[in-house]
Amino acid sequence: MEFKVTVLGTSSATFAYGRHQSATLVSFDNYLFLVDCGEGTQTQLIEHKAKIAKLTAIFITHLHGDHYLGLVGFLGTLSMGGRKKALTVFGPAGLKEIIEVQFKHSGTILNFELTIEEHQSEVQTTITTYSFLKVSTIPLQHRIPCVGYLFEEVIVKRTFRSDKNLEVLPKAAILALKDGLNYLDPISGEQFLATDWLNDFRPTRKFAYCSDTIYLPEVYKLFMGADLLYHEATFGKEHAQRAKETFHCTAEQAATQAKNAQVGKLIISHFSSRYKDIEPLVMEARTIFPNTEAAIEGREYILPVIREALMDNNLESQ
Amino acid sequence: MEFKVTVLGTSSATFAYGRHQSATLVSFDNYLFLVDCGEGTQTQLIEHKAKIAKLTAIFITHLHGDHYLGLVGFLGTLSMGGRKKALTVFGPAGLKEIIEVQFKHSGTILNFELTIEEHQSEVQTTITTYSFLKVSTIPLQHRIPCVGYLFEEVIVKRTFRSDKNLEVLPKAAILALKDGLNYLDPISGEQFLATDWLNDFRPTRKFAYCSDTIYLPEVYKLFMGADLLYHEATFGKEHAQRAKETFHCTAEQAATQAKNAQVGKLIISHFSSRYKDIEPLVMEARTIFPNTEAAIEGREYILPVIREALMDNNLESQ
Repeated sequence: MEFKVTVLGTSSATFAYGRHQSATLVSFDNYLFLVDCGEGTQTQLIEHKAKIAKLTAIFITHLHGDHYLGLVGFLGTLSMGGRKKALTVFGPAGLKEIIEVQFKHSGTILNFELTIEEHQSEVQTTITTYSFLKVSTIPLQHRIPCVGYLFEEVIVKRTFRSDKNLEVLPKAAILALKDGLNYLDPISGEQFLATDWLNDFRPTRKFAYCSDTIYLPEVYKLFMGADLLYHEATFGKEHAQRAKETFHCTAEQAATQAKNAQVGKLIISHFSSRYKDIEPLVMEARTIFPNTEAAIEGREYILPVIREALMDNNLESQ
Repeated sequence: MEFKVTVLGTSSATFAYGRHQSATLVSFDNYLFLVDCGEGTQTQLIEHKAKIAKLTAIFITHLHGDHYLGLVGFLGTLSMGGRKKALTVFGPAGLKEIIEVQFKHSGTILNFELTIEEHQSEVQTTITTYSFLKVSTIPLQHRIPCVGYLFEEVIVKRTFRSDKNLEVLPKAAILALKDGLNYLDPISGEQFLATDWLNDFRPTRKFAYCSDTIYLPEVYKLFMGADLLYHEATFGKEHAQRAKETFHCTAEQAATQAKNAQVGKLIISHFSSRYKDIEPLVMEARTIFPNTEAAIEGREYILPVIREALMDNNLESQ
């Protein structure tokens, strides 16, 4: 089950230096999700050859234009493109009114069923689940209600080892082992250990998307051990005051979240138009969290199935 | 006073073959107007180095997304870019609600005064005037209320010829001539003819923008003698039925309007994504109106100060 992330827009607010407004694709197995949909997202999807027919759901972090203005046009394009499959858009309160007012005045009737699910932004909530994946909010603080999203693989039950002969097992032992439990036979006194009969847990993968937010010292706990963290770094630390005033983060603050959450990799994005060259932001972040990259539009970031740090985390939490 | 038109988007509905959604700049003297503002217009304005600081007003023909979805983002960009000068947006009923709902949820407060003037779409109306220019609607018929716009230079009073000695004129003759009237002196019986004492009328220029509309046989009368006509030609005549059903025009129909209105030049645009090559549409139009071109994004069309056909029209209408 491939789990990968493709950032389509790395600019904050406006367009600058060829950078586009926020939009990120999350692909998990046969699911495809779009997180944020700034103006021009539909052209970016074409540009980067996204398989939009597969699109499962859309997640909108907040209602600043650079994160949702491409949505109404994109929904229209999907409909004109022949989509029949239902689609759900998750987002903050207000999204439904924004879409419905525009559909009303433009006389738009989509060829597919659209569900708009508005969520609160105060406490972390699992808002939807798919096979082996759940999506939760990450409550953030911005000038208006805003959440990030956590895409988290669900732990799959341990399966029986193929090199074992299950016929020798008492029925009660099979039932216990299926639930991952050891079994002590009350008559024979024989022990059947889960570690002997079952395959190991497959480590689960997590992708956390955090944009836009003021620096919140405790928020990293909500995406602890994520394999990949997308975090806004609108400013460099020389503009820490401006970042605070506008409810944004510096590269250093993004890296601090990555470090505290012990993530595998950090990609920073959502760069202010004041930065033509974003290399200094990457350098700033790397002083705190070395495995940082600036998001590159169109590049795929694949979440590794097994990661050293994640295995450690799993052990620690047992 | 330069009068020119720059088309920034030539695609209908969606993006195709590098063509963008509807947006056209009209520049008259020191005024700059934007007609329609599809998604991505702000990037097209940057791409084609438009002097947006000069922007005087925006005109939205109708509320299909490909004609207005770039507006909210563009207004935000203008504000962030430091605009302080008031701005008026003209458009159909509903535009105000669409903008206000989005500003409400995004917490947007512009740094300049925005006026949204909604107009009806049933009868031709002059909606605003500037020095030497007036803008009127051209009522069209589409699936939702829709107008085109006519940018029409206002006739300037004829001025006295510089080679004439005005001191020999009786006071009453001066007053009459100022109004363009001949004067017969009641005492001396002397005649003072306007044609002798005044410069010729400077021919006035007109630009007509017509998109989107079903073919309306009589509408050409509303932009008779325009120097330049921008007209939608979403389809070729092989799709005349589809054009009718979707309330659009074929290239042939656009050319018929141009011919009937005796315009100077026709530029066709708003091409369906089914056409990769639009040359056949141009050929189709030229069989009826030879001076047709396909609109090219970014190209400037300058309205000539003196045009043979226009002079003829003036003579005919006297």
